[in-house]
Amino acid sequence: MIQQNAVEAMKTVCSLLIFALLSTPVAAQDSLPSWNDGASKQAIVAFVKKVTTEGSESFVPAAERIAVFDNDGTLWCEFPLPNQATFAFDEIKRLLPENPVWKDDPAVTALVSGDVAALKADHNAGLIKIIALTHAGLTPDEFDERVQNWLATAKHPKFDCAYTNVIYQPMLEVLNYLRANDFETWIVSGGGKDFMRVFAEATYGIPPQQIIGSYGKLKYELKEGKPTLTKTLDSLFVDDKEGKPVGIAQFIGRRPIACFGNSDGDQAMMEYTTIDNPRPSFGLIVHHTDAEREYAYDANPTSSGKLTTALDAAPQRGWTVVDMKQDWKTVFPDDPKDGTSSLIGEWLVEDIAGKGVVDRVQTTVNFSADGTASGSTGVNRYSGKADIDGNKLTFGSLATTRMAGPAALMDQEQRFLTAAETIVAFEFGEPGIVYFLDNNANRAMKLSKK
Amino acid sequence: MIQQNAVEAMKTVCSLLIFALLSTPVAAQDSLPSWNDGASKQAIVAFVKKVTTEGSESFVPAAERIAVFDNDGTLWCEFPLPNQATFAFDEIKRLLPENPVWKDDPAVTALVSGDVAALKADHNAGLIKIIALTHAGLTPDEFDERVQNWLATAKHPKFDCAYTNVIYQPMLEVLNYLRANDFETWIVSGGGKDFMRVFAEATYGIPPQQIIGSYGKLKYELKEGKPTLTKTLDSLFVDDKEGKPVGIAQFIGRRPIACFGNSDGDQAMMEYTTIDNPRPSFGLIVHHTDAEREYAYDANPTSSGKLTTALDAAPQRGWTVVDMKQDWKTVFPDDPKDGTSSLIGEWLVEDIAGKGVVDRVQTTVNFSADGTASGSTGVNRYSGKADIDGNKLTFGSLATTRMAGPAALMDQEQRFLTAAETIVAFEFGEPGIVYFLDNNANRAMKLSKK
Repeated sequence: MIQQNAVEAMKTVCSLLIFALLSTPVAAQDSLPSWNDGASKQAIVAFVKKVTTEGSESFVPAAERIAVFDNDGTLWCEFPLPNQATFAFDEIKRLLPENPVWKDDPAVTALVSGDVAALKADHNAGLIKIIALTHAGLTPDEFDERVQNWLATAKHPKFDCAYTNVIYQPMLEVLNYLRANDFETWIVSGGGKDFMRVFAEATYGIPPQQIIGSYGKLKYELKEGKPTLTKTLDSLFVDDKEGKPVGIAQFIGRRPIACFGNSDGDQAMMEYTTIDNPRPSFGLIVHHTDAEREYAYDANPTSSGKLTTALDAAPQRGWTVVDMKQDWKTVFPDDPKDGTSSLIGEWLVEDIAGKGVVDRVQTTVNFSADGTASGSTGVNRYSGKADIDGNKLTFGSLATTRMAGPAALMDQEQRFLTAAETIVAFEFGEPGIVYFLDNNANRAMKLSKK
Repeated sequence: MIQQNAVEAMKTVCSLLIFALLSTPVAAQDSLPSWNDGASKQAIVAFVKKVTTEGSESFVPAAERIAVFDNDGTLWCEFPLPNQATFAFDEIKRLLPENPVWKDDPAVTALVSGDVAALKADHNAGLIKIIALTHAGLTPDEFDERVQNWLATAKHPKFDCAYTNVIYQPMLEVLNYLRANDFETWIVSGGGKDFMRVFAEATYGIPPQQIIGSYGKLKYELKEGKPTLTKTLDSLFVDDKEGKPVGIAQFIGRRPIACFGNSDGDQAMMEYTTIDNPRPSFGLIVHHTDAEREYAYDANPTSSGKLTTALDAAPQRGWTVVDMKQDWKTVFPDDPKDGTSSLIGEWLVEDIAGKGVVDRVQTTVNFSADGTASGSTGVNRYSGKADIDGNKLTFGSLATTRMAGPAALMDQEQRFLTAAETIVAFEFGEPGIVYFLDNNANRAMKLSKK
């Protein structure tokens, strides 16, 4: 066994090497390619440089580099309806046949007949009932599965693709850029915490424990000897407006130094981040000005996303206001319709060249937004370049660790690496399945979404 | 400016090198030196090896390596009273002169006269009042400052040292060992979330956002134009018993695979971690059996820490039960009375050899529990060995990065590195200050606690 001090020494050497190379902050020129040059991009880059330059007065230690992001309208599209509302409506319709008593519920009747006014009457009583019917009385695991199934099949009405593809490429780049500069990125959204946790890790690279949202009490019990949590809507915490700084203080316990939002619902957390903060701080508002590529709205949105007071306050507060139409070179990752971006994430190899795979180990492929693929061959870790362009896919040469394993696994590793060299394209199959094609258009590999 | 792809390439090379060296999990022989060899230590090591061995069926990806720790009685001493209760009692006495109306409060009267029965009467109504008087109606920053001041001065009645020194060295080693194996370590305690967040980062290496505890609602408002949060005891969330799995699900959103506790209050989260978990899992109970070095209690503690049902359930559940007296070679970091452990943490250099330091940069020294010192010279990062033994202190040769800086800062760096070589001892001065002494017993450096 390798001595631990040798490992530690190597880590130190590597850290120092990396550190020396990183003595200037991670270069931004390449980090924000979907942003047009202009005041917004410059402001982001200048702030990151300011807080990461060692020895400067404005330097902020990595542990305090907390960045918070609203979700609806800031990271993904919230039009024509917040996606979680669409989910709830779709769920009511899907579950109605199994729940005939719902037909007597005025909220369900209003929903089915499209009577939005009735749903909103009496302080949104109908909407709250719809949320209760679809978000409470089940376990978090059951709820997760429903959200997953919905995300796998539902399509955005304007862009005709999965909701997780209608996300803002420039903001993905900001997330990556901040993380590359040792920021911890958090979501702080009025949306449901449990709803977002289903997709945020694969979609934004933000793990469940960095997602703050609205939530109700959970009930815990041992049911037939098994630990069981049940979602309720009791003691609802609404993570919107003044709830956002409260959620931040409760979950993070540390004041953010950067805040990204798009509506008046984000104003309180923008203020909490930028007013009277002993650290340098940064606020940014995404202003939806692009009716052609996305939507244009501020004072009078059809649903959520009202932006008036926060926009008025921006100049005085020094917040950067992004003009989507002017500032964003592209809005969505590639053209969302071609589904390219949905390769991003982790896949499990189910078959190689029709010969199957060994059951008890996992050969995986993890595509990152930065154009790399990495994973496990089942024995060794590997990584390398992955070019995705439309439905074309090619791997660069893959670097692997060099451990030995049982013969069957070494064989599988070899088959995987050999097959990877032949891949030229991909196609989606049944839900959650993708095939990698060789240059004879044979399905050389079958993978399932992890 | 260095190209980012060069940095990335270097990172990849280093990652692969480190990875190759780490292809066996981080060696445990040296990681748990305060544990006697035996079933408990073996169980910890075997579990970590099991979930970190790539290619094995029991392998758990790093993102899912969540470990949760109770605090009172698991990471630090909870006898004769939970430390937070002592804090509340001390605060009442300190604040009484400024709050003469409190004298008419029966809870305060009971406390001042030591009438514990009266405090506990009527479902702890008196104790709850004491908590309300000391934990609500102030901002989190004000509360933090009070806790800091108390921790800096209060002494444990038996061990006669700061409460943050009465922590369990073997458990610190478990925390470090797990983190070295890419676990994320969390506290899940019935104690106050805000109380623990004041000291847990410096004491355990656990940042605020990984601390779950009991808490009340926060109120947010702009007060005289400044963002202001106020602590209340409304909608109290009690993170104990069934509250623990609930807190875990709300804050982490991912099931832990390892759970460490010491009382029946931890049983629900032990069950949540280990029953019906699709991942391999581990539960450990610290049984306080050492009346000489610490305390011995289980069924009948004087205050918190009752351990009966969880102990009974342990064999059936496969939980490891630590016999403190048998399993722990040492209980506290060094002898807590000598204050050695309070060097651990980050210090700011205030003076070198009586010649001052440049105001606008920070030369820092961060002592880790693993015997290393690291920090910034003001221009470069450095790290190396630091031997602390009683009041003796010596630095090994310090490796630094090699950036150039302004002449004044390079001079300070040189003075710091030269002075470090001469240090042979340390002594504490006024609160929060330590002096490093050379072999003529001169105060060669003055540092303040960061």
